[in-house]
Amino acid sequence: MSTFVVVGGDAAGMSAASKAKRDDPDLDVVVFEKGEWVSYGACGLPYYVKGEIQSLDDLVSVTPEEFREERDVDLRTGHEVVDVDPESRVVTAQSDDGELRQEYDHLLVATGAEAVTPSIEGMDREGVYTLGSMSDGRDLREYVGRARSDEDLQQPDRGPACQFLETCNGPVGIVGGGYIGVEMAEAIAANGFEVHLFQRGDRILKEFSEATSEAVLDHLRDEDVAVYLGEEVEGLAGRDRVEAVVTGDGRVPVEMVLVGTGVRPRTDLAEDAGIELGETGAIATDAYRETNVPDVYAAGDCAEAEHVVTGEPAHVPLALTANRHGRAVGKTVAGEPTEGGRVAGTAAVKAFEMEAARTGVLDHERAREAGFEPMTETIDAKSRAGYYPEGGTVRVTLTVDRPSGRVLGGSLASEYGEGAVHRSHALVGAVTEGVAVDELSNYDLAYAPPFNTTWDPVLTAAKVVDGKR
Amino acid sequence: MSTFVVVGGDAAGMSAASKAKRDDPDLDVVVFEKGEWVSYGACGLPYYVKGEIQSLDDLVSVTPEEFREERDVDLRTGHEVVDVDPESRVVTAQSDDGELRQEYDHLLVATGAEAVTPSIEGMDREGVYTLGSMSDGRDLREYVGRARSDEDLQQPDRGPACQFLETCNGPVGIVGGGYIGVEMAEAIAANGFEVHLFQRGDRILKEFSEATSEAVLDHLRDEDVAVYLGEEVEGLAGRDRVEAVVTGDGRVPVEMVLVGTGVRPRTDLAEDAGIELGETGAIATDAYRETNVPDVYAAGDCAEAEHVVTGEPAHVPLALTANRHGRAVGKTVAGEPTEGGRVAGTAAVKAFEMEAARTGVLDHERAREAGFEPMTETIDAKSRAGYYPEGGTVRVTLTVDRPSGRVLGGSLASEYGEGAVHRSHALVGAVTEGVAVDELSNYDLAYAPPFNTTWDPVLTAAKVVDGKR
Repeated sequence: MSTFVVVGGDAAGMSAASKAKRDDPDLDVVVFEKGEWVSYGACGLPYYVKGEIQSLDDLVSVTPEEFREERDVDLRTGHEVVDVDPESRVVTAQSDDGELRQEYDHLLVATGAEAVTPSIEGMDREGVYTLGSMSDGRDLREYVGRARSDEDLQQPDRGPACQFLETCNGPVGIVGGGYIGVEMAEAIAANGFEVHLFQRGDRILKEFSEATSEAVLDHLRDEDVAVYLGEEVEGLAGRDRVEAVVTGDGRVPVEMVLVGTGVRPRTDLAEDAGIELGETGAIATDAYRETNVPDVYAAGDCAEAEHVVTGEPAHVPLALTANRHGRAVGKTVAGEPTEGGRVAGTAAVKAFEMEAARTGVLDHERAREAGFEPMTETIDAKSRAGYYPEGGTVRVTLTVDRPSGRVLGGSLASEYGEGAVHRSHALVGAVTEGVAVDELSNYDLAYAPPFNTTWDPVLTAAKVVDGKR
Repeated sequence: MSTFVVVGGDAAGMSAASKAKRDDPDLDVVVFEKGEWVSYGACGLPYYVKGEIQSLDDLVSVTPEEFREERDVDLRTGHEVVDVDPESRVVTAQSDDGELRQEYDHLLVATGAEAVTPSIEGMDREGVYTLGSMSDGRDLREYVGRARSDEDLQQPDRGPACQFLETCNGPVGIVGGGYIGVEMAEAIAANGFEVHLFQRGDRILKEFSEATSEAVLDHLRDEDVAVYLGEEVEGLAGRDRVEAVVTGDGRVPVEMVLVGTGVRPRTDLAEDAGIELGETGAIATDAYRETNVPDVYAAGDCAEAEHVVTGEPAHVPLALTANRHGRAVGKTVAGEPTEGGRVAGTAAVKAFEMEAARTGVLDHERAREAGFEPMTETIDAKSRAGYYPEGGTVRVTLTVDRPSGRVLGGSLASEYGEGAVHRSHALVGAVTEGVAVDELSNYDLAYAPPFNTTWDPVLTAAKVVDGKR
């Protein structure tokens, strides 16, 4: 009997474990997870902090008990793997009960990614949060939800932040204007806080098109979020507790700070075991997620994957890829070698009453490195028939290779509910299949007045770009 | 100087005229339209009848004056073309001012389609409507809107229908369960009428998957529409005015009937001129929309187009194709030969608080005729993350070729706003590019909790179908 050991019990790890055991019930499947939570939807944390989801348990798609009892996976929470020895095919895990050695025939490293904590002064002050884990989410909800209650506003002992602010729902600082920063701006503002968002670069959501960034920026400002662009945060000042965000331009008083400046792959364990990293800093794998070490796989936020446009390894630490690649490893280990597909760098975000999505390569420098001659156009189009009583605007950006017309990337924004995100599905296909923009403009997309104009905004964008090539 | 003559002033005709004139300002562009309305959105008529759109003028995207003055198109409304002579390259048009002969170098036949009036007894009674034209829409709105006002309900002289019904908002019959029937059920019910919908076949929306039909049927019944399946309407009974729908099973009293049993291409003019029809009964064209007669094109609801899956000519009389092919003819005539693309048979419909879309080939017999070995699977999946406070169910049907996995067709249904229609965009791409379902299941589609589950329902469907091949 063969043993499949998985390190890390979130999306990639648990997908692999479940699939392997289902496809090959004779396989022994052992999962080591250092924390208590497994298979949780970290993407849902902003909505938990916002207060729209009542319990952290709601974010868990499959409980540890279900994995153990229904799926027959030997899941060991509270076990941190501290060593992998590929020579003898043994991992060593530490728990409160001491050290444990486990042999494996196949190993999956699914150690995920961790929030980057920037090297700014004051990161360790009380009131400074990141959002990388379920317990981070719990702490934030406790703070944000507590500060909201009227009862609480009367209590004088809520900490130093309250003492110099007019109201306990005082200003909050968010450092970083990526997905987390934008989603958390909504979550925190919804609880009655004034939000100040600091972005080092000259625009938020820098993975999206400039036009998308601009649309979301305008909307954040309409929603009374104070957005500071091009302002590097130099420190988080205060005595014990954070009291102000310090930038080159001055101090902004805050009672709490959320730092969301990206994530980096957790690779220490892999590196120590002689597993090679790629240029992105994540673990390098082949199309089957196998690393340079035979029978050792890596999937999810700690690993690279081939990009559909560039053909080069990319590090896109998002949930679907983790699920998909974990599942593929499970099938492979169970005896059916499975690739699990490439990545397009697709992402979606809701920001207050807007939605946005992006896919493929939008950055011209990156497109040129991959051998393309990029050009980009953006259009604003009605989301539904002009005469239809509901509707808004969909902004579509397309980046294409000028000579061939190949669609390299797309970025969309609309009012929430007006379909920017689901429309991006069409562009993922175009980017993945290498479709030229003139062919895309001839796609026979669904049309009816409650859903779009006769030419869906995606088609209009394709037509416009094609006309300018 | 060259002359481009267009017969028919709706989507295909006016798209061609505008594009040709814009691309080649030296071209003389003459459009003959027998009615008064041009470039109108017939797809919006149900929402006008419903009362959500205030004026018929709102449905007109470009007015006759704008075509004449801004686009420099010689538009002659009230002119019916009665003859085309390809030998001498002359068309003859009749108007109130008499007969007119017009020479052409290029000719576009864009005569559209007309509502099929089934050969049932009583079609000519008062109170029997079809929805093929703007004036049909006006008549229906007048009836439906009038009957709704309280004031009107007091008037004893509203016609015989009121005299034997308890209320003037009495039952209404709809004959036909296609798009028009379903959309009009919503429009008429919204005005306070009891709706009885008669469908000859065993399901509504027969171009969609059975599972989609069933979902919409259940919803119509939830919305108190009485749906009669497998009931052929034998007659519309009454003295002058219609008073009952007569089927093999009995009589259903009604005060008004809408007949929506499909459309057929208007081809008399073309046939008389020696222009060949295809097997579908619509005008046959090549990829450039040119007919068997040199320099004579046909586009829009009167013409065929190549289907992306079967490679065979198909007749799909819908707005986007008409616009796209009209525009392509315009470019071609202006000197840049342009194909304008194939059709996938994509369609979308809103039915009360549901939405549905379909694309490609779902019918097994048709798939087999095209050389495929079809299989079909349907899944129901959550439209958003399970823990997200909003959301519903997306039902996805996929039909694939078993040996190759190629996606042949798809059909989706969801609550209105839960994204069945925009999600269909992904399937149009798959169907058009001949993508296999295992590749589709690996698409890196956008994910965030407010928009879908980690595996979008489209991906889940692909995974399920692939697993059963």
